[in-house]
Parts: sequence; C-alpha cells; structure tokens
Amino acid sequence: RRAEMAKSTQLIQNEVFRAYATYAAIVLLKMMLMSLITAYFRITRKAFVNPEDTASFGKGESAKKYLRTDPDVERVRRGHLNDLENIVPFVGIGLLYALSGPELSTALLHFRIFTGARILHTFAYLIPLPQPGRGLSWAVGYAVTFSMAYNVLRAAWLL
Amino acid sequence: RRAEMAKSTQLIQNEVFRAYATYAAIVLLKMMLMSLITAYFRITRKAFVNPEDTASFGKGESAKKYLRTDPDVERVRRGHLNDLENIVPFVGIGLLYALSGPELSTALLHFRIFTGARILHTFAYLIPLPQPGRGLSWAVGYAVTFSMAYNVLRAAWLL
Amino acid sequence: RRAEMAKSTQLIQNEVFRAYATYAAIVLLKMMLMSLITAYFRITRKAFVNPEDTASFGKGESAKKYLRTDPDVERVRRGHLNDLENIVPFVGIGLLYALSGPELSTALLHFRIFTGARILHTFAYLIPLPQPGRGLSWAVGYAVTFSMAYNVLRAAWLL
Repeated sequence: RRAEMAKSTQLIQNEVFRAYATYAAIVLLKMMLMSLITAYFRITRKAFVNPEDTASFGKGESAKKYLRTDPDVERVRRGHLNDLENIVPFVGIGLLYALSGPELSTALLHFRIFTGARILHTFAYLIPLPQPGRGLSWAVGYAVTFSMAYNVLRAAWLL
Repeated sequence: RRAEMAKSTQLIQNEVFRAYATYAAIVLLKMMLMSLITAYFRITRKAFVNPEDTASFGKGESAKKYLRTDPDVERVRRGHLNDLENIVPFVGIGLLYALSGPELSTALLHFRIFTGARILHTFAYLIPLPQPGRGLSWAVGYAVTFSMAYNVLRAAWLL
Repeated sequence: RRAEMAKSTQLIQNEVFRAYATYAAIVLLKMMLMSLITAYFRITRKAFVNPEDTASFGKGESAKKYLRTDPDVERVRRGHLNDLENIVPFVGIGLLYALSGPELSTALLHFRIFTGARILHTFAYLIPLPQPGRGLSWAVGYAVTFSMAYNVLRAAWLL
C-alpha cells in the first residue's frame, strides 16, 4: 500500500508536471467560470431557454415571454464554446507535452503564455474589445498549443 | 519489453487511479449516450439539419420540410453541451487530482457524488423535472470539480 | 533532479503510450483545424456573429448586413461540435486505455481506426458526401471508443 501511494505521487513530484497541473487547473476553472457568467446574465436579463426555468415567473403567457435569446447571454455562450474548442486541446496536448520531458523553463513559457492569452480572450470577448484584440489573443493560444503538439509528435511519433 | 509493460501498468495498479479510471469512463460513456438520444429524437421526430440526411425522404420540397428544429431534439442537444461544459473539467481536473495523492475514501467520495449528480442532471433535463432539480444537480457536480481543483492547486501550485 | 527527469520521461518511453500520444495529438490537431476552416468561411462568405468583427466594413447599416448566418459556416461549426462530442471521449478514454496495459498491436488498431474514421467524417461533413457516409464514419469512431471504455472498465473497475 505504501509503495502504491509512492507511485501515485511520483508524477506530482515532477516539476514540469506540477507546472502543467497548476495551469491546466487554472484554465479549466476559468472555463467553468463561464457557466456562472451565463447564469448571471440569464437571471439579470430574464432570458431563458427551458420552460421549466421560467415557472417561478408565473404560468402561461406571463412566463413565456422570458423564453427568449439575449445578446449578452449569447455572447457569453460563444465565449464558453470558444473555450471548449481551445482549452480542451491545450489540456490534452499539454499533458502529453508535460510527459514528453521538456525543459521546465520552456514548459512554463508555453503554459503561462497560453493561460494569459485565454484570460485576455475572455476579457476581449465579454467587454468587448475592438478587433483584432480577440483575434490576436485567440491566435496566441492556438500557436502555443500547436507548438506543444509539434514537440509531442517529435518525441512520441509512432504510426 | 517486460520492464516497459510493467511501467505501463503501474498507474492502473494504484487504487485511486483505478477509481478515477472507472468513474471517468462511466461519465464519458454517459456523455456519449447523448449522441444516441439525439439521433433517436431526430429520426422519430423527423427533424434534421443537414440536407443530405433527408435524401431518403424524397427530393425537393417533400424532403425539405424535415429540415427543421424540434423541441425534444434541442433539449437533448442542450443536455449534451452541458455535459461537455461540465464533464470535460471533471475528467481533466479529476486526473490531476487522482495523481496528487488523495486518500482513496476521499477520492471515491468526490468521484461518486459527481457521477451521481451528472446522471441525475441528465434525467432532470430530459424528463424534465421542475426546477431546482436540474439546477441543484448541476451545482453539486460543479462544487465537486471545484473541490478537486482546490486540492490540485494546493498540491501542485508552481507559478 | 536527474531522477525526476527520468521519471517524467518514463511514460513517453512506453510504446503504447507513445502510440496514444501520437494519435491523440493528430486528432486534436484535426479538431483545431476546424477553427481555421470556420474563420476561412466567415471571411470569404462575409458572415459574422459579433458586431466588433464587422467594424472594418464600415459603420452602421453597411456593416450590419454582414451579421448573418451562412450555410457553409454553420456546416463547419456542426462538424467542429461533433468533433468535440467524439474526440474528447476518445482522448479521455484512450489515455486510460493506454495506461491499462493493452497489447501494442491491439492499441494501434484502435487508435488508427478512430483517427481514420474521424478524418473521413470531416470530409463526409464538409464536401458533403451522401449518407450513410457521414453516419458510418461517426459510428466507427464511436464503436472504437466504446471498445476502449469496455477494456478500461474491465481492467480498472473499482466502484
């Protein structure tokens, strides 16, 4: 049992893996935050999609008018979907990259730039900032993930 | 080769990791099930989105009328997207949590509550149950993932 | 430090894990490619969703007409979402499967068929090919992931 416990904590003692764990947790928490922001806008804008969500506003037509789309709600939802499309590849490829034996400093550079770019992307989407603010922050995160994938394939290539 | 094989089975022999693998596989299979339910409703409600999917119903206007949205289909799709938004963070953060050396009993508690909450969430969404049934089951899964993320950051924090 | 470095490269030296890393990176890159195709169609079809994205086309009504949906853009977006729904379970379950100690040849068969099926699915969606082209390529990838999940649960089952 003690030996098993040691094995389980092996990876977490590796510095690159600890750095990965830290930044992967941060960007996943940031992505989860989008759910709360969506809920906030749905409630303050009174814009729902499920009939059962408007039951507390009364029955019939009086509740039905809250089944509608709202520009602010839709904007947060687009930001959330963009997170899924970009943070999922980062978490998956980042894990493989962390296990491929990179230098700690290089790995930290990748993780930090990606995390910063995605936080900027969220602000650029929600404020919203004029383009190319959102486009650039998206492209930086995309390039970081691509760079990690290149390193994974160079280390692991087995077709 | 034998040594390599041993290395590859190391993690799977760890009890916390085996618990993680079990519950992560279950919730991912549950998420995949949503695709089948969507297909079932698309076919029984005859509500499609791609023109090539309605070709078997004939050509021209007779097939075009099946290119429409259906409330049941849209409901399943929302449940599926909600799974992506919540099960993806669980799988990612749960892996890091399982590798951070938690007690087996604590880890099992996290994994079991999350899995139960997401199964309840699916029933609450599809039946649908009156609120706050769906809201509460969502919040419980969210809180479990947040608790695991806190433990990961406490164990791995390296900024 | 040297011992830690050795530990970090342990998994990447395992052949099954290297095969997993290779194919997981490939399908995640394929999924990321959908973002570029969406951007390409948005720009060539002049079909945007955020007002700030059309600012370069002028102000007021002249720019507003580009805030619209386009069938080609929506098609790529559906393909992208389908990737999220199917490639995410593959990456998650595939990792657990790779760590459950399968034969290299069996693992390669799973990874290769899934990767081929998802590349075919993308072509079937974007060209588009007549059904059941897209449906079959989807089902093959789905079945591969299901088979891996079965093997994970058989190896790890701990409820």
